[in-house]
Amino acid sequence: MKTSLYTVTIPPFIKALTNLSNCLDKAIIHAEAKKFDPQTLLQSRLAPDQFPLVRQVQLASDAAKSFAARLNGQEVPSIADTEATVEELKGRIAKTIEILNAVKPEDVDGKEDVTNIKLPYLPGMLTGFEYAIGLTIPNFYFHIVTAYAILRHNGVDIGKTDYIGSLDIIA
Amino acid sequence: MKTSLYTVTIPPFIKALTNLSNCLDKAIIHAEAKKFDPQTLLQSRLAPDQFPLVRQVQLASDAAKSFAARLNGQEVPSIADTEATVEELKGRIAKTIEILNAVKPEDVDGKEDVTNIKLPYLPGMLTGFEYAIGLTIPNFYFHIVTAYAILRHNGVDIGKTDYIGSLDIIA
Repeated sequence: MKTSLYTVTIPPFIKALTNLSNCLDKAIIHAEAKKFDPQTLLQSRLAPDQFPLVRQVQLASDAAKSFAARLNGQEVPSIADTEATVEELKGRIAKTIEILNAVKPEDVDGKEDVTNIKLPYLPGMLTGFEYAIGLTIPNFYFHIVTAYAILRHNGVDIGKTDYIGSLDIIA
Repeated sequence: MKTSLYTVTIPPFIKALTNLSNCLDKAIIHAEAKKFDPQTLLQSRLAPDQFPLVRQVQLASDAAKSFAARLNGQEVPSIADTEATVEELKGRIAKTIEILNAVKPEDVDGKEDVTNIKLPYLPGMLTGFEYAIGLTIPNFYFHIVTAYAILRHNGVDIGKTDYIGSLDIIA
């Protein structure tokens, strides 16, 4: 596999979102075993001034689905932030993966030097490279891992393997 | 900036470790303000069967400092896992950054297709690309973000900006 702006972003994002969706399945199983309503997990958080699980998943989705659109000066694909159940969060992840699957390598590769990446919460502009490597990758993993940590903190039976997922092992 | 296996790993790792060290400074300030011993934070964790802060920082350091060595079939630079204070954890981060600063682009770039990456806990081998993008990047951020989450959970006054750090803004 060649290292390119596409191969270090879109496919790993799809994999991490798939793994997070699997962790949400385990959250449902945990809630059933413990006989609590899995929807309570959506408002769980690690600190009172931190976003809860539902928002962490939405923000991971946003970081991923905005990426190729912003690199190309296009409108960011919109998904309403209305998820109220774990199943709906899994639906948002599935929709996000659909958007990422439609991104072609040529939509991303070679965009390192564009200088017109404007974020709503930042003054000025970023280059494509800074947007990808300085912001999007760490920001995406921030929300994925925080979502994982909230589930873990609530006793969901997940481990590092659920987060990393399967690796291409050479026998 | 060009996208290469080096530019998507070593410089972002240095930046994330620097930001984590700054978060540890804020942990010391928080402990002083609240008049508790900052060393208690080292054993704090989000779940009883999860590694505490000290181990999260060690594992982020390990993921980063192993990377170029393993790509080149060299022995991984060793740092004893003996940190007992926040200052010593900051020292480990500084040592890790020193190791990363000594990595040259040519130590990493072009190693995508090596097929002899052997991890102690994995059967078989990984390619350089799979080791970098499938394992090292998500694993590194996993431990950085979990360390951040543990500090956040303990009331340390840190936010997303402390985690992302400064961005190269075009005026």
